[in-house]
Amino acid sequence: MSGNSFGKIFKLTTFGESHGKAIGCIIDGVPAGLAINIDDIQLELDRRRPGQSKLVTQRKEGDKVELLSGIFDGKSTGTPISMVIYNQDAKSKDYSHIADKFRPSHADFTYQEKYGIRDYRGGGRSSARETAARVAAGAIAKQFLKQSGIQVFSWVSAVGTMSLDKPLESLDLTRIESNPVRCPDPETAAAMENYILQTKKQGDTIGGRVSGLITGLPSGLGAPVFDKLHAILGQAMLSINACKGFEYGSGFAGTKMKGSDHNDAFYKDENDQVKTRSNFSGGIQGGLSNGMDVNFNLAFKPVATIVQDQESVDESGNTATVSGKGRHDPCVVPRAVPIVDAMAALVIADFLLRKRMDQA
Amino acid sequence: MSGNSFGKIFKLTTFGESHGKAIGCIIDGVPAGLAINIDDIQLELDRRRPGQSKLVTQRKEGDKVELLSGIFDGKSTGTPISMVIYNQDAKSKDYSHIADKFRPSHADFTYQEKYGIRDYRGGGRSSARETAARVAAGAIAKQFLKQSGIQVFSWVSAVGTMSLDKPLESLDLTRIESNPVRCPDPETAAAMENYILQTKKQGDTIGGRVSGLITGLPSGLGAPVFDKLHAILGQAMLSINACKGFEYGSGFAGTKMKGSDHNDAFYKDENDQVKTRSNFSGGIQGGLSNGMDVNFNLAFKPVATIVQDQESVDESGNTATVSGKGRHDPCVVPRAVPIVDAMAALVIADFLLRKRMDQA
Amino acid sequence: MSGNSFGKIFKLTTFGESHGKAIGCIIDGVPAGLAINIDDIQLELDRRRPGQSKLVTQRKEGDKVELLSGIFDGKSTGTPISMVIYNQDAKSKDYSHIADKFRPSHADFTYQEKYGIRDYRGGGRSSARETAARVAAGAIAKQFLKQSGIQVFSWVSAVGTMSLDKPLESLDLTRIESNPVRCPDPETAAAMENYILQTKKQGDTIGGRVSGLITGLPSGLGAPVFDKLHAILGQAMLSINACKGFEYGSGFAGTKMKGSDHNDAFYKDENDQVKTRSNFSGGIQGGLSNGMDVNFNLAFKPVATIVQDQESVDESGNTATVSGKGRHDPCVVPRAVPIVDAMAALVIADFLLRKRMDQA
Amino acid sequence: MSGNSFGKIFKLTTFGESHGKAIGCIIDGVPAGLAINIDDIQLELDRRRPGQSKLVTQRKEGDKVELLSGIFDGKSTGTPISMVIYNQDAKSKDYSHIADKFRPSHADFTYQEKYGIRDYRGGGRSSARETAARVAAGAIAKQFLKQSGIQVFSWVSAVGTMSLDKPLESLDLTRIESNPVRCPDPETAAAMENYILQTKKQGDTIGGRVSGLITGLPSGLGAPVFDKLHAILGQAMLSINACKGFEYGSGFAGTKMKGSDHNDAFYKDENDQVKTRSNFSGGIQGGLSNGMDVNFNLAFKPVATIVQDQESVDESGNTATVSGKGRHDPCVVPRAVPIVDAMAALVIADFLLRKRMDQA
Repeated sequence: MSGNSFGKIFKLTTFGESHGKAIGCIIDGVPAGLAINIDDIQLELDRRRPGQSKLVTQRKEGDKVELLSGIFDGKSTGTPISMVIYNQDAKSKDYSHIADKFRPSHADFTYQEKYGIRDYRGGGRSSARETAARVAAGAIAKQFLKQSGIQVFSWVSAVGTMSLDKPLESLDLTRIESNPVRCPDPETAAAMENYILQTKKQGDTIGGRVSGLITGLPSGLGAPVFDKLHAILGQAMLSINACKGFEYGSGFAGTKMKGSDHNDAFYKDENDQVKTRSNFSGGIQGGLSNGMDVNFNLAFKPVATIVQDQESVDESGNTATVSGKGRHDPCVVPRAVPIVDAMAALVIADFLLRKRMDQA
Repeated sequence: MSGNSFGKIFKLTTFGESHGKAIGCIIDGVPAGLAINIDDIQLELDRRRPGQSKLVTQRKEGDKVELLSGIFDGKSTGTPISMVIYNQDAKSKDYSHIADKFRPSHADFTYQEKYGIRDYRGGGRSSARETAARVAAGAIAKQFLKQSGIQVFSWVSAVGTMSLDKPLESLDLTRIESNPVRCPDPETAAAMENYILQTKKQGDTIGGRVSGLITGLPSGLGAPVFDKLHAILGQAMLSINACKGFEYGSGFAGTKMKGSDHNDAFYKDENDQVKTRSNFSGGIQGGLSNGMDVNFNLAFKPVATIVQDQESVDESGNTATVSGKGRHDPCVVPRAVPIVDAMAALVIADFLLRKRMDQA
Repeated sequence: MSGNSFGKIFKLTTFGESHGKAIGCIIDGVPAGLAINIDDIQLELDRRRPGQSKLVTQRKEGDKVELLSGIFDGKSTGTPISMVIYNQDAKSKDYSHIADKFRPSHADFTYQEKYGIRDYRGGGRSSARETAARVAAGAIAKQFLKQSGIQVFSWVSAVGTMSLDKPLESLDLTRIESNPVRCPDPETAAAMENYILQTKKQGDTIGGRVSGLITGLPSGLGAPVFDKLHAILGQAMLSINACKGFEYGSGFAGTKMKGSDHNDAFYKDENDQVKTRSNFSGGIQGGLSNGMDVNFNLAFKPVATIVQDQESVDESGNTATVSGKGRHDPCVVPRAVPIVDAMAALVIADFLLRKRMDQA
Repeated sequence: MSGNSFGKIFKLTTFGESHGKAIGCIIDGVPAGLAINIDDIQLELDRRRPGQSKLVTQRKEGDKVELLSGIFDGKSTGTPISMVIYNQDAKSKDYSHIADKFRPSHADFTYQEKYGIRDYRGGGRSSARETAARVAAGAIAKQFLKQSGIQVFSWVSAVGTMSLDKPLESLDLTRIESNPVRCPDPETAAAMENYILQTKKQGDTIGGRVSGLITGLPSGLGAPVFDKLHAILGQAMLSINACKGFEYGSGFAGTKMKGSDHNDAFYKDENDQVKTRSNFSGGIQGGLSNGMDVNFNLAFKPVATIVQDQESVDESGNTATVSGKGRHDPCVVPRAVPIVDAMAALVIADFLLRKRMDQA
């Protein structure tokens, strides 16, 4: 049974393989009358697109999005919005050497086991190329959030052992896009860039961490029990290729705290808004937003494709040697940023609509 | 829109408030012909039940489960299985003092904001009492997994700053239930127990970490893209009260590794099974199980109810002082263990059924 | 995979077998703050309850509904509402004679084929007893509709070959409950009652037709394409035991009309409301309500249990003779009326909530 | 909230407007390894395509389907199959005259009411053009059914007052495509064709009836309670544009029968298969298939677009006159046939997969 849809009301379904004819999506449930700016969608796709800097794969994809339905006179009509991106630079021959071999820590083996058949070219459906469809959809979600004054941000907060240790309050999030690493602190960004390039030279790859922030949320967003805001946010983030961990608010560090330090005292601010003095809750209590900013961290493993010989097996179970040849990123986190943004926006858009049913 | 259901095929819907008439659930989608042992369900509930040791709340709940439907001659019939647990020891008067005040880092404020009305007694729906229904359902899921030789384990691997640092391979998981902390290492367990009791004496609480392991999985379990095995496992775990983080395989530590160290080389073992030499993937590649054990860690925050005065506001927005009076746990992690087991079992049961549709 | 849930937002899941411990349901998605009158729920159950007149089965069920969750201070809290009805008069011994035989035109054979096991007592899950849970849920849906001035009506419009041929406009729908047949025309009702009793004396059963009307609907209710208002209404009605057909508006008779006669001309009434001069559309155009009344007809087959010997087979495939012994209705349509009402109310309640997401 | 998806496992989502850039769909949940014949998909689209005979609209649409994903080496891979059909002959100018007027018995008014905006060109999303996507998807479903020896048939059994009165057993269903009316009896077909052409000459339209048959079904297909096989089949059929009624088995005529005549006696045939002597059940008992053929009838209203002046209102509520100008069918039923086939195939494909979860 498929897992290609996300969201209950603002619902995204993606399709497409890395080296197939096209990738794309249907977003069903976008309310009617929303002004849709196509340039803003393309802008987000350009952020995710490969070939932007030395840090990322040089695969050349124009990634031009085409809108097929659901929009009339520049506005959503309430009907499904379909978008398609035709694959242009799909060098399938790059992958013939792995047609019957399983690349370590890739999805080759597990797809073969599950389906008995797989489109091995560039990882097929398991390729991060699929996330372009998410980014396009997330761009529409962002336009919906804008109406409510909600913003999503994410940035690289660690690369390998090098981390950004400044407090959130001191960061200038307008600078995320000012450097190829997508770290809002220019000095750290420069060091990280160097670190990544050195790793690349070694034919190796490195992991990292992305941090996220959602501002302007109303209180009461999310749902009790299984669809807690952070649970769905967690699913959304963990569904991004290479993501190995999710924490929000105080996260894993908070496990070491006492309740008396961890509890967020309520007070009323000068605008008669209920606020909390600290925010170890990460803006979420009982699975529902409390009006404070939502913050979270994501762990990304090192990219599995390395330009080194590796031990593996082939489809017949014989020992085989695999070596990366395609064009790949030495570090995935800078390109993960627009995907994280997109998933965060999709989560919030869905809950904003779900919130409309809270009261009779 | 509600979030009270979990699973797509083996589907659980829970109901009930902490101090309402009853809590319970419907599990829809249990295949017919499964032998259901009611004693095993009760056994799991007894593990979660309060009042078992000095470490946990002394609320006395018999938590006797009653099966209302879906079983005939000791076997599932393919129709919905409904279970109910009547609330017995619901001391509602304990909560009148917070009828119009918001306890810090609880769900009081956010539920009020969302619904405009809330059952304040014991946290109502937001209370962890709801998880008893999950544990009952998980017990049935476990019986389904047993058929396929799959087992789920979880245990306390850290309490506050005190952690169990032995390698997974060295742990004897049959000892998890041998102590009230549910830590498989007796020495560490004793130290943790002491630590928790000291925290309790201070009227304070402490967080901790639960680790989990799933063994015996077939390969190809999970779904691509949004329903990756670890993404749904993450949602399941993050939906447990007080859970603040989820990581699997190498998790956050893996972000610091190089690809050449992190990749799990494939080989064929003596039984012609494809295995990996290391397991940084945590048994999951491309969102699908690869046949290795699945492992994960969960962060739990310190319990929010502390026996100390705390700054807050009331429903009118006026400053108020809140102090815990009810019966609560100083540390939630020991009681979280059966809930983690249950959620893991539910995730796997659902994917086992979903796997039946993989091939034509 | 189960089919025990109905509705996307105002979502009902029922459980229970005819002669099991209890039947009941969870309604998830009832918005918070709705005043819930328990007496009104019981009233609807009493309408459906057997033993009310000579026309229906004499099985004595108190059918007392018990509310387990989701309501606080007389109002819905936005959390799942669970209701249970314990089975009291379950004479299981009546059914031992069919433990291994398949009653003709019942669900015995198909359940056995599907599940390999079945609770044969009184039809188990396939019994119309399950509809009591629908009626309880429908009663809550009705209370939600009342807020918006929407009403649902249904009545018996034909029994066997005897039909009520007066135009809809001439019927006094307040008289539906004035007779055991639930036909709003007293004379026709008396004749139908006689007809049913004669059929009963012959140890036989007879089919019939139920007609429905929904008034006070806003325009734009329903959804395009697959969830057209009449398509979901059709599913709802066809899911009622013994229902064999559904038509709305001009229905099957309309197939014989010309477009020039069938089209409903628009005009603006004295209150500046857009109305249609005729209503062959049955209040629905393009799957969405147009503000006119929605009307529909349902076909119900004759009850399958007859007090006559019938040819059949047993579980081993041997020829067997089956004869009805339990207590059953000679004609199902009078008791179908409150069930039709309930399903109509559930359909509309769900779409009313879905409508909240139409515009940005 | 959207209604653009159908099916729970073999799940279709369609997109596209009549005069937008393209229409298309994603089918998610097609099991891997199914051989997909693209020519067979095109063949079904050609059956539905306008311009085939004098009976149907002369709009020229190549309706060439393009497969974008989910297929590799001629087989399904278990990933979403996306298909797109670009709109070629979209004469939008034909519709400018109704940009702000509501055509009687069309969806213009209700879409405007629901969404506050509508793509008025050719009915936009409400146009039957959307069904081309269903037909493409249904063609894949048919290929899946073929594996199990299941076939779906549908044909025109009435046009206006002219009906095919021969018994089902006497019909040669291989002749359905032998004439433009799609009636398997050549004589009746010729008369119907004449009848339709006469109606066309009058600038008028006429309704009709489509009958369907599904053969080769295993027993136990369908689901209890709300997802009864006939309930979902009913929803599927009622979701087809202009469909006003659905009945299966004995249908509305069966309401006049006695139980003793209507019950289908079981017997064992010469191959030790359990069969029924009659089939008033229409192959479905308790919502589950019993292994006999499933049969059903559908009512279609006369096409709403007529070449005559009609009274209506415009968006401002002023009285307006509307007259059909576009290219339209005088009778929709011949072209409905491939759509009915497609929906039937989709229903059965979904239940075939759902059936895999019945037993433990």
